Amino acid sequence: MQKLIITAALTGAEVTKEQQPNLPATPDEIAEAAYECYKAGASIVHVHARDDDGNPTQAYEVYKEIKEKIEAKCNIIVQPSTGGAVWHSADERLQPVELAPEMATLSCGTCNFGPDVFMNSQEYMEKFAKRMKELGVKPEIEVFERGMINNALRLAKKGFIDFPLHFDFVLGVPGACPGTPEDLMHMVRSIPEESTWTVAGIGRSETPLAAMAIVLGGNVRVGFEDNIYYSKGVLAKSNAELVERVVRIAKEMGREVATPDEAREILGIKK
Amino acid sequence: MQKLIITAALTGAEVTKEQQPNLPATPDEIAEAAYECYKAGASIVHVHARDDDGNPTQAYEVYKEIKEKIEAKCNIIVQPSTGGAVWHSADERLQPVELAPEMATLSCGTCNFGPDVFMNSQEYMEKFAKRMKELGVKPEIEVFERGMINNALRLAKKGFIDFPLHFDFVLGVPGACPGTPEDLMHMVRSIPEESTWTVAGIGRSETPLAAMAIVLGGNVRVGFEDNIYYSKGVLAKSNAELVERVVRIAKEMGREVATPDEAREILGIKK
Amino acid sequence: MQKLIITAALTGAEVTKEQQPNLPATPDEIAEAAYECYKAGASIVHVHARDDDGNPTQAYEVYKEIKEKIEAKCNIIVQPSTGGAVWHSADERLQPVELAPEMATLSCGTCNFGPDVFMNSQEYMEKFAKRMKELGVKPEIEVFERGMINNALRLAKKGFIDFPLHFDFVLGVPGACPGTPEDLMHMVRSIPEESTWTVAGIGRSETPLAAMAIVLGGNVRVGFEDNIYYSKGVLAKSNAELVERVVRIAKEMGREVATPDEAREILGIKK
Amino acid sequence: MQKLIITAALTGAEVTKEQQPNLPATPDEIAEAAYECYKAGASIVHVHARDDDGNPTQAYEVYKEIKEKIEAKCNIIVQPSTGGAVWHSADERLQPVELAPEMATLSCGTCNFGPDVFMNSQEYMEKFAKRMKELGVKPEIEVFERGMINNALRLAKKGFIDFPLHFDFVLGVPGACPGTPEDLMHMVRSIPEESTWTVAGIGRSETPLAAMAIVLGGNVRVGFEDNIYYSKGVLAKSNAELVERVVRIAKEMGREVATPDEAREILGIKK
Ligand SMILES: [Zn+2]
Ligand SMILES: [Zn+2]
Ligand SMILES: [Zn+2]
Ligand SMILES: [Zn+2]
Repeated sequence: MQKLIITAALTGAEVTKEQQPNLPATPDEIAEAAYECYKAGASIVHVHARDDDGNPTQAYEVYKEIKEKIEAKCNIIVQPSTGGAVWHSADERLQPVELAPEMATLSCGTCNFGPDVFMNSQEYMEKFAKRMKELGVKPEIEVFERGMINNALRLAKKGFIDFPLHFDFVLGVPGACPGTPEDLMHMVRSIPEESTWTVAGIGRSETPLAAMAIVLGGNVRVGFEDNIYYSKGVLAKSNAELVERVVRIAKEMGREVATPDEAREILGIKK
Repeated sequence: MQKLIITAALTGAEVTKEQQPNLPATPDEIAEAAYECYKAGASIVHVHARDDDGNPTQAYEVYKEIKEKIEAKCNIIVQPSTGGAVWHSADERLQPVELAPEMATLSCGTCNFGPDVFMNSQEYMEKFAKRMKELGVKPEIEVFERGMINNALRLAKKGFIDFPLHFDFVLGVPGACPGTPEDLMHMVRSIPEESTWTVAGIGRSETPLAAMAIVLGGNVRVGFEDNIYYSKGVLAKSNAELVERVVRIAKEMGREVATPDEAREILGIKK
Repeated sequence: MQKLIITAALTGAEVTKEQQPNLPATPDEIAEAAYECYKAGASIVHVHARDDDGNPTQAYEVYKEIKEKIEAKCNIIVQPSTGGAVWHSADERLQPVELAPEMATLSCGTCNFGPDVFMNSQEYMEKFAKRMKELGVKPEIEVFERGMINNALRLAKKGFIDFPLHFDFVLGVPGACPGTPEDLMHMVRSIPEESTWTVAGIGRSETPLAAMAIVLGGNVRVGFEDNIYYSKGVLAKSNAELVERVVRIAKEMGREVATPDEAREILGIKK
Repeated sequence: MQKLIITAALTGAEVTKEQQPNLPATPDEIAEAAYECYKAGASIVHVHARDDDGNPTQAYEVYKEIKEKIEAKCNIIVQPSTGGAVWHSADERLQPVELAPEMATLSCGTCNFGPDVFMNSQEYMEKFAKRMKELGVKPEIEVFERGMINNALRLAKKGFIDFPLHFDFVLGVPGACPGTPEDLMHMVRSIPEESTWTVAGIGRSETPLAAMAIVLGGNVRVGFEDNIYYSKGVLAKSNAELVERVVRIAKEMGREVATPDEAREILGIKK
């Protein structure tokens, strides 16, 4: 079985410092949290930026500062979000791709997101995918619903993205596919065999789906974007604390954890 | 096994007379097609209206005329669409519910629909469900993606709709969940046991998923809204021709076909 | 989708003329029934022999007579059973293989069979497979339980049988895997992708599983060995009547039926 | 989610001291190992006896000695095997049931077991189940293949065993159902909803299936009967070492471990 790639989703667009006091929000905080997660065993850091007021921003300059500060500290793969917040326009969302990071997310469909709608029309997807390809950015295909796998396959057949595909199943968002073991199994059954995949279980499905992924040969994303608790009613102390748990479970299961360079090799990323 | 409820989806919002010359579009054509489908074995007719130019409309008056004309001919259950076309507003879409029909569709989530986005936010769903409940309209929960089942469960828990639920799995729309047997099985596994369900396989998945539903104890929707062909490259002569095939397959499988009154009993509709 | 291979399992080892008056038992009756099934659309006939008292026999001479009489009438593929009856020894069971037929069954594991045990130890399997390979007989791997797939894979890895494998899922035997759609789906998921497969649904699961197989791209076995009824409480008039129903369902689904020569090509049998 | 019941399968019938030097074989060794597993978190001990030469025995007296020695040390539930070794007769196998232990295993079908056949005909099952019921022994239904679930349901419908049923999925035996996550999911889907279940993953599937069971709300069996290694190529030091790992994984997942009395309550065992 391939080594386990752990992604730390540090910040997200929705969590506030009120909900999780240890949320990293400034470039310095994010870089420090990324470094801690790297030391804990993460090989990818999924990044959302915040402005000076703590609100989500997709500004090029902020992502640039974050990326440089992380890269100054360690070798971890920096993966900016192109999802942004639900109210961001396509052009706003696309800004961090201009940094030509090694990876970026590519959400492959539209769904409800709590009371909001997370908009990713065919036009958006093609625009995002095209620019990533031009800049050599490896897409992490974000799948919130089953049909988004096929949307990605359609993009690939049209040449907007390249095989083999790398999927991130984001399961448990209110409004989209729930985070049950059956749902994860169904997703895994539905992708081309040579694909790689990770799972981001939202809320209390984070740890169960992480364990499933370790068993199934998939990879794992954890972090405050997806879940702010360590256990029921107990806030996590840091993103790294959540990474550490995944590392411990992997160790119990005899699955080795990938370094960033091993992750690059698994994902076909040329540094 | 319960008797088989067949729904005829006669017209839809997207098909044109250019694509399918026998598409029923005027109230008279729709009523006549409904009556033919009734004679063929359908117990529900799923209705979309068109204006004088053949464009989709959700106008109360047009639905009223259609409903009256169908009911003058036969006992079939009239189920207006509240989906309308992708560009209709919520208020436009809701108009046919004011007719207090026995049933109406309730789309339970947002997804891509080819190049468009079919919008059903939490707010829309609650608004639609609330009005249906006030008027005693049985909702057919339209599910284009797995998460929409849970959206419906959430509506039910909040009291907007009543258990037991009746689902329609619309599978094979480009942009949403594909129409494979595995996907249908996964949907069926994911609903509460006491639910009823039907499947609308889009395009070439129409007949395979119909056969699956007959085997699995579900129900079947066919018609030009979902599929305009009888076989590969051969246009269907009428909606009734598609209904007739389902009736023949059901007969081969030993599954009896429900009359409209039997369908009412199965679905808990008080006439 | 490949053309549909229909196998007629005419006689079996357990059904009696008391249960099904039209059961073909003598070589002449069996040859006549095979010919009727051929005309109806079957491309393989699965053969069990009976002695003069109507009891199951695996005698070489009887199978020889049957095979010659069938081949005198038509081009159908003759597939003798090596399962025989539960009390037959391995050597008895193996006799028809000495005729070097184009195909023969190879049961790949032991399970309960009602009050009896159907014995297929590792030793038996290897012995049967070895002799089939020596004589150029294509094995139809009979799978009554999930683990039997892996037993076959183990045989193949040891060189006793050749890839690609052809499976027959015999589902619904009391004592072994039941004949539900979920069980069939699980079996199909569990075989190597390039395999071919057929399903023999026992008793009332015959027609539902036949329909599933037509949809899923598999193949179908029907006949008195598996099911003696045409519909609930109504005995079938002939094996051919059961074949005819499968042909009609396939036609409704737009799946073409294979001739014996087309079946040979699909299965890799050199005549 | 219910607390996790951990069963320690200490000895089995096949493992030798040559393979695993720390295999408990004498009553004293078995009692000591049971006590260690109890301290580690096991609430059930699954017992096989050995004679003075280390060979499997089903002798009443030996099981009696083992049971008394374990019960002198701790409160753990003692669950003798009625499977014995593949060459034991039904009467031999049934002996430990005469001790009226709180639980005993009830293997519900026949399958290959490597080169051997593990024989559990309908007659055996009914005989075993009847005697257990007379003596108030809670059966743990051992399932090596999917059909064995239905065999148990048939026993229950005939009154030989009582609902709710408690299953043990023994997955990964060469000759029977393999130990994959898909297979475990399929088993879980196939039992009545109110059932309890545990999984015994054989060999290298032990830990992955344990993790799956913790996630899915099932229970876990580990021990030298099923697996003698701690990690690839590294022998486990003791049965307790394997129990400890399950406890640690459960803790990481936030699933509490049941005491023997809590296990009794979950399983409906009146002490
Ligand atoms: Zn994100
Ligand atoms: Zn519609
Ligand atoms: Zn046979
Ligand atoms: Zn045992």
